[in-house]
Amino acid sequence: MAIITSTVAYKDDDVVLEAYIAFDDAIKGMRPAVLVSHAWSGREGFVAEKARKLAEMGYVGFALDMYGQGIRGASVDENTALMQPFIDDRAMLQKRIVAAFYAVRQLPWVDQNHIAAIGFCFGGLCVLDLARSGLDLKGVVSFHGLLSPPENLEQKSIKAKVLVLHGNDDPMVPVDHVIALQQELTTAGVDWQIHTFGQTMHAFTNPVANDPEFGTVYQADADRRSWQLMQNFLSEIFAS
Amino acid sequence: MAIITSTVAYKDDDVVLEAYIAFDDAIKGMRPAVLVSHAWSGREGFVAEKARKLAEMGYVGFALDMYGQGIRGASVDENTALMQPFIDDRAMLQKRIVAAFYAVRQLPWVDQNHIAAIGFCFGGLCVLDLARSGLDLKGVVSFHGLLSPPENLEQKSIKAKVLVLHGNDDPMVPVDHVIALQQELTTAGVDWQIHTFGQTMHAFTNPVANDPEFGTVYQADADRRSWQLMQNFLSEIFAS
Repeated sequence: MAIITSTVAYKDDDVVLEAYIAFDDAIKGMRPAVLVSHAWSGREGFVAEKARKLAEMGYVGFALDMYGQGIRGASVDENTALMQPFIDDRAMLQKRIVAAFYAVRQLPWVDQNHIAAIGFCFGGLCVLDLARSGLDLKGVVSFHGLLSPPENLEQKSIKAKVLVLHGNDDPMVPVDHVIALQQELTTAGVDWQIHTFGQTMHAFTNPVANDPEFGTVYQADADRRSWQLMQNFLSEIFAS
Repeated sequence: MAIITSTVAYKDDDVVLEAYIAFDDAIKGMRPAVLVSHAWSGREGFVAEKARKLAEMGYVGFALDMYGQGIRGASVDENTALMQPFIDDRAMLQKRIVAAFYAVRQLPWVDQNHIAAIGFCFGGLCVLDLARSGLDLKGVVSFHGLLSPPENLEQKSIKAKVLVLHGNDDPMVPVDHVIALQQELTTAGVDWQIHTFGQTMHAFTNPVANDPEFGTVYQADADRRSWQLMQNFLSEIFAS
């Protein structure tokens, strides 16, 4: 194994974005790629590590950038200010993540027929909106993702399989958002699964999350189990 | 591998019950045991096959009997007549499945600290009631199980981890039963997970189920995925 990491600049119109990529140089030829969509603070070390882990699994890991080169939040206020415009304008959000999809396809090692996306918190919402673009994506996985309904998105035929990994006590995801998503995906004929972890809050995969009052708490069991679920899902969707 | 299968008689008071057991004779020493709780028609070939698959995984598979030696239903009416008394009297149901728990512990190959239970349809309800007994069980898995609340059961401290595998379009499991179960297990502090499969009806693991009007339809993806989820779950709970 010879994991190479690097950054790659790409654009959404005039906005310059910077992805972190990881791949195993010991593997010859093209391979599946997995986009990794960051939480509200931006493209941090957390998603970079996920990209490296995906590279160790034989995929190209591509930690995308929703905010712009070098832009990160460092407080709840800053994070909210960065994320909220995308929550308020889902068409803008979708356009931004679609740019990442086209960027990963440019990489020489990427098998264009085997692309998936995973996302955490805000990133979970992003990968669902990527699926809603109708682009040729094998699947998406949301880890404790926001699930608010897509307000201003045009309805397209969803090709991706969908796996949602949800904490039952996540105060940022109202139960009516879960139900609305289930209904949307059922009506659309999507192959979907939702896995709910009991005794689990928001941000359960993040080892530094430790704020029960805010609703963000690391949960080692849900972290390990959700990663296993993702691995099974990726193996399945990339086998066809 | 040298899979041995046999039947074992055991009793609940005066009622003689007959389990089907399977184990790998090439394995030396004690090993975990997995009870398999049948659907409404009784201890049929379907659960016997599951017991054999569990034996191939290195466990003792014990397809228990809720109805009595040789008693099977052969029609919807017969199945209902066999099952309904247990649905109506959950204390009787619990007592009957607890008898299986004590029976499996008598087998010489069984590691008494590593016992789990899986169940299908009516059997899913049974293994939840076994968990509710508070006995020393590592975990239970319900496949498209009935989830109606336990009417007349004494409340005990649940030791088992719980995994529920549920079809979103299962007409036999109202959504308020799902919610009631989530609330019960959350309040009880249980380590629980519910995995919901979209586009999936009741009986999704049963290859001969093919009655969309009745709400029972085999679904190959959900069958394969749910078995994988169970395998991961058993590996996890038997590792500790």
